[in-house]
Amino acid sequence: MATISDNSSVQTSKATWIWYPGDFEIWLGNRFNNRRTERGGMFPPFWKQDSHWATVEFSKSFTLEKDETLHITAEGSYNLMLDGKLQFGQPKDLILPAGEHKLNIKVHNLASPPALFIKGTTVHTDASWLVTYEDKIWIDENGVAHGSGIYVHPGFENFDSAGQLPSQYRLRRKTVAAVSMEPVKKGMLYDFGKETFGYVRLATIDGQGTVGIYYGESREEALDTDYCETLDRVEITQESITDLATGTVCPYSDSYTLPSSKAFRYIYVVAPKTLLFEVSADYEYNTFNTAESGFFHSYDNELSKIWRVSAHTMDLTTREFFLDGIKRDRWTWSGDAIQSYLMNYYLRFNSRLVRRTIRQLRGKDPVTAHVNTIMDYSFYWFKSVYDYYFHTGDVGFVREIYPRMRSLMDYCLERLDQDGMAAGQPDDWIFVDWTDFPMPKRGVMCFEQILFCKALETMKLCAELLCRHPLSDPPQGSLSRKDYEADIKKYDALFNSLLKKTKKLFWSKKLNAFMHNMDQGKVNPMITKFPNMFAILYDYVSPQEKKEILRQVLLNDKIEKITTPYMRFYELEALCEMGQQESVLKEIKAYWGGMIREGATSFWEKYNPQEKGLQHLAMYGRPYGKSLCHAWGASPIYLLGKYFLGVRPTSPGYATFEIKPCLAGQRSMNGRVPTPHGIIEVAVYSTDIYVTIPEGKGELVFYSNCQPVCETDPVRRDLIDRKCYRLKLTEPYKKYHVHYEAI
Amino acid sequence: MATISDNSSVQTSKATWIWYPGDFEIWLGNRFNNRRTERGGMFPPFWKQDSHWATVEFSKSFTLEKDETLHITAEGSYNLMLDGKLQFGQPKDLILPAGEHKLNIKVHNLASPPALFIKGTTVHTDASWLVTYEDKIWIDENGVAHGSGIYVHPGFENFDSAGQLPSQYRLRRKTVAAVSMEPVKKGMLYDFGKETFGYVRLATIDGQGTVGIYYGESREEALDTDYCETLDRVEITQESITDLATGTVCPYSDSYTLPSSKAFRYIYVVAPKTLLFEVSADYEYNTFNTAESGFFHSYDNELSKIWRVSAHTMDLTTREFFLDGIKRDRWTWSGDAIQSYLMNYYLRFNSRLVRRTIRQLRGKDPVTAHVNTIMDYSFYWFKSVYDYYFHTGDVGFVREIYPRMRSLMDYCLERLDQDGMAAGQPDDWIFVDWTDFPMPKRGVMCFEQILFCKALETMKLCAELLCRHPLSDPPQGSLSRKDYEADIKKYDALFNSLLKKTKKLFWSKKLNAFMHNMDQGKVNPMITKFPNMFAILYDYVSPQEKKEILRQVLLNDKIEKITTPYMRFYELEALCEMGQQESVLKEIKAYWGGMIREGATSFWEKYNPQEKGLQHLAMYGRPYGKSLCHAWGASPIYLLGKYFLGVRPTSPGYATFEIKPCLAGQRSMNGRVPTPHGIIEVAVYSTDIYVTIPEGKGELVFYSNCQPVCETDPVRRDLIDRKCYRLKLTEPYKKYHVHYEAI
Repeated sequence: MATISDNSSVQTSKATWIWYPGDFEIWLGNRFNNRRTERGGMFPPFWKQDSHWATVEFSKSFTLEKDETLHITAEGSYNLMLDGKLQFGQPKDLILPAGEHKLNIKVHNLASPPALFIKGTTVHTDASWLVTYEDKIWIDENGVAHGSGIYVHPGFENFDSAGQLPSQYRLRRKTVAAVSMEPVKKGMLYDFGKETFGYVRLATIDGQGTVGIYYGESREEALDTDYCETLDRVEITQESITDLATGTVCPYSDSYTLPSSKAFRYIYVVAPKTLLFEVSADYEYNTFNTAESGFFHSYDNELSKIWRVSAHTMDLTTREFFLDGIKRDRWTWSGDAIQSYLMNYYLRFNSRLVRRTIRQLRGKDPVTAHVNTIMDYSFYWFKSVYDYYFHTGDVGFVREIYPRMRSLMDYCLERLDQDGMAAGQPDDWIFVDWTDFPMPKRGVMCFEQILFCKALETMKLCAELLCRHPLSDPPQGSLSRKDYEADIKKYDALFNSLLKKTKKLFWSKKLNAFMHNMDQGKVNPMITKFPNMFAILYDYVSPQEKKEILRQVLLNDKIEKITTPYMRFYELEALCEMGQQESVLKEIKAYWGGMIREGATSFWEKYNPQEKGLQHLAMYGRPYGKSLCHAWGASPIYLLGKYFLGVRPTSPGYATFEIKPCLAGQRSMNGRVPTPHGIIEVAVYSTDIYVTIPEGKGELVFYSNCQPVCETDPVRRDLIDRKCYRLKLTEPYKKYHVHYEAI
Repeated sequence: MATISDNSSVQTSKATWIWYPGDFEIWLGNRFNNRRTERGGMFPPFWKQDSHWATVEFSKSFTLEKDETLHITAEGSYNLMLDGKLQFGQPKDLILPAGEHKLNIKVHNLASPPALFIKGTTVHTDASWLVTYEDKIWIDENGVAHGSGIYVHPGFENFDSAGQLPSQYRLRRKTVAAVSMEPVKKGMLYDFGKETFGYVRLATIDGQGTVGIYYGESREEALDTDYCETLDRVEITQESITDLATGTVCPYSDSYTLPSSKAFRYIYVVAPKTLLFEVSADYEYNTFNTAESGFFHSYDNELSKIWRVSAHTMDLTTREFFLDGIKRDRWTWSGDAIQSYLMNYYLRFNSRLVRRTIRQLRGKDPVTAHVNTIMDYSFYWFKSVYDYYFHTGDVGFVREIYPRMRSLMDYCLERLDQDGMAAGQPDDWIFVDWTDFPMPKRGVMCFEQILFCKALETMKLCAELLCRHPLSDPPQGSLSRKDYEADIKKYDALFNSLLKKTKKLFWSKKLNAFMHNMDQGKVNPMITKFPNMFAILYDYVSPQEKKEILRQVLLNDKIEKITTPYMRFYELEALCEMGQQESVLKEIKAYWGGMIREGATSFWEKYNPQEKGLQHLAMYGRPYGKSLCHAWGASPIYLLGKYFLGVRPTSPGYATFEIKPCLAGQRSMNGRVPTPHGIIEVAVYSTDIYVTIPEGKGELVFYSNCQPVCETDPVRRDLIDRKCYRLKLTEPYKKYHVHYEAI
């Protein structure tokens, strides 16, 4: 499980490239988010894109027992100050005598983040170094210079050799062939068998002319050259091959790979008859996706297939960052990403990519707009940090990102209305969900207040966490215990006050549910699932109120249906939290099974079972506007892992965890859930449960009609619920076996 | 005078490259400020360096009477939306039919600022376009997208053809030869005759080995290979030539120019005997410095020479930006720059370079430290904006920079002490001046309050100005009249309150002067020239108090002397404002003349006439630490132009101006002063004054013992001062002649 153990933000055992934290992500995010195209035109995001710091200073103090030679590589021009003395030039090898030393290295680079790699026998660049972008000095009245500035620990990833330059980072590729080809009109239609992503390759080229390449997530889209969402044009002459979209010119060669990646299952290629070539594609993927990881299999074949298609959807949308959809938008979106993170904890446990996406979404100060310009997306962003901590136990990342949480929260607080509530300002996008029914989004929405409560609660939780985990040697300029204590007070008060106001304003004792919004002083008594299901999930209502919401809203057919997998994620999770696994299983089979019956090889951005045929492809007023491979479509991964295999951490980083399987009508199921310490394996039959755990203290919780038997360990009966039994799991890699009788 | 008329921030008559305002300066500033070296090691600034926006959107709406083809060039990848429809690829030629159109072009570039150049018959990129870095859209409840974001007018310079890429900008060079060479020990010493700046060239290279190049502003420095401030090493082999400081490798050639520029009068070159070559240098200069411009000549040869050496000093420090000194720091410093701007108004009137330096010094939000980390330098920065406006009349630049003035002022205001006074925080550098006597700089300094008053007053003046000059069609998101009106109120109140508190706290009725500072509740009655001379300059005291300051402080030998040309600038200006031109002239001859007698070919960072020999070269504890070509050494340009030729604007942009010559004991003087409209020429003899003006309304003011005669125009006697006469100057290029009798 090297891929998982190698996966924390504070791992420091070997030499690694380091940079200012967040800068690699901002730079990579710029490249990433600017790759979206629409019919051959570049389509950058419509929000502020930041840049990395152009000059940063890295520093480290250390003591050498013996003489040592350091090998230095930097991305950018650099200087080196040894023990306070600036050295000539840009030394590549530095011979140090035994004793105490201090290194200060400034690196300057405009095109990509200033980065440093040093390797010696005992000294190397790692997370223990310090870095600053403004190592301000000042001069006192005696003309003496004082060093200052805000120092932080550097960012790094798994770039562990001098030659592995961060600026050269790219995903891996492998060539894949179409499974079938078919002449249609003047062109050839290639079918790659399932949704995929990569770069089209033309091989054994013979002849000249312009090739049109039309991509389709559906057959219809690829063949509709006037309306397909993405396309390419390549001009081949005797001298050169030109990608007409980007204007990139290559010398002529008999094989050619397009410079821009696209999403497709089908491609339709139109070329003059005199121009011949073969077509394949370079599939591009995140290597982490091939690691040993989460799995789910059910006796119910449809459910197994739903899980596999979900996993394929997640893997395709797990790229340099977690993105929304691979056809469009190809951007990181905070509301989409927080779901990807949660699914990821049950699929690949790629925590590096979670950190990377969280950092990139936040960008730099000053905050000039909500994350992705959407108020709800700012609120989700906060929660994603604590989710990450709870799954990984990585306090270091919370410490790194906390100052940027603070400045985003300052922005949110500055925009509250006179009652201290989060009302959308004219230039905020209030998203909630795509709905097929009209839903007012202005004024004070109950949904937004509940999300904002969670954001405030998260600030409090993170401040408490950092207060409990002080650094023994905090870098100059970092937040102090006093700062954290003040924050705990501040955010706790704000959280409690807002929750109280929200309940008072929106909870209807008559309807036993949260009402929709207040606009121009008037409360709109409309009931939607949105605020109500989040109130259950965030535990902001009493057990009795939860039951009322379940009955009056979640299971009430008169309430408008949700038609995106995005919000179905939370709806079904709330139902699971209320013990409704059986009806959730039916919903999963009906809704996600419905997409598969419509031919889906990956899950969609939106699915309304009422629609027919081509209606399924259309969105945003465009015939193929809908993304057919959208990360938020993959939530069965999360639901099946957490609520059916029943695995969840009960303390940060899976130090303790619970396995509470629920067959919910299946004859059997088995699967794996990744944790920071390795894999949890669970197999559940109606009479037997098998469990293996890695490190950590677990508890198997299950229901049985008879006294269960485990030959190696005692099974205890729950004191309250007489059909519930508990087995302590303490030994790594032991095969626990319980014989029981499923209820 | 095309070079001068072409010199405003709103000139728009031809196609020009455009970018987000400030981004070119931030990018160029990064290259510029990172070029400082110290004995072969790179020496970047010790403050935050910002980056340009990676993706920006340019837009323009227009109506075509006839079909037109636009030719498009961009630095970066780009898209093009025509009338709301995204076009395929990156069109180079766009054929537009007659009618109304809207273009939106997004350009993305990490390495250099996204920039755009469009040329058609009637449509071209210029200052009338709009640009945004966050053209935020949001979606309303009906799913309709709304365009928003803060739009501003773009930045531009004189890059007026498609091929003149902003990222390729560099200064011009010409080869210069040494005036003498002399073998010293194992090397050869080259003397270039006077202080210069450029790139050393080795020609007709024959042989191999490593060349050491040691630069000196003095002969002593060049020959002291262990302590000279800058040096280079070049390794020549049969295959290649390597600059060892930067590691840059070139294929072997028999001539080689070093990649890094240096300041020097002398260079000492040491090479193995078997390696032969000739040495010259590529002098690098700002082409603006060759334009027709300011001039001063006196019957007093020493004064003429002081002016010429000042002009040479200014020209050497006038580079991509106005910098402090060419040997070190080679950075832009706000306190140094504001003096360069003022001298520049009397030498080259390069207002583009003033704007460029002001923009770069300010950088981007968020403000995390004072400009250059120095509190006084933030305060000067504000004043420099209004100084610029008053000399150029360019409201457009004030409008552009005002939001960044506001955010810097917010930073200043956040850091005030409980009494609302600007006390230095522990991480602020309080500079004031380099002094040879101990001067406390902590607590509340009177000097800093007076500068801060000026900063607040400047905010008020700029807000009033923008209120008086509203845009007819303000870009979306820009500040409104209401904002400006609120600012006028706010800053006026802050200004008046601070000035009152400062006078109350620091003005000693006993000593008739401002006292030094207050630390830990105690006022320090020390008197220095610093706060007192600024109180005169900023007109913050009554005429009677000014006279007291003059007697008790400025002309009082018991008060500590100023030993930098930096503060002598303001000291002598205050004396001139008090009519002390005769003693100022003596001071100029003694002080600047003193440097020339010490062999100066450019003026120094610091000059204490008490010091001897090598003491003049040392500073910062280093034997050659002192810069011998420092912009702030060139103030005679300003003093002679403003207070002896007597030319100054009396309303913004020289719409009206005054010429009030003062021979102050010279037998005669003549000179030129540049204005936005052209050159003012003045020649003054004891019996005749000759004046020529460009556009604008001027007034010649002079003193005569008899009734003066002008054959063409009436000379009026001043009503109050009976020896003062006034002549209205209204006709451009007419040679006005007055016959008078100098007092």
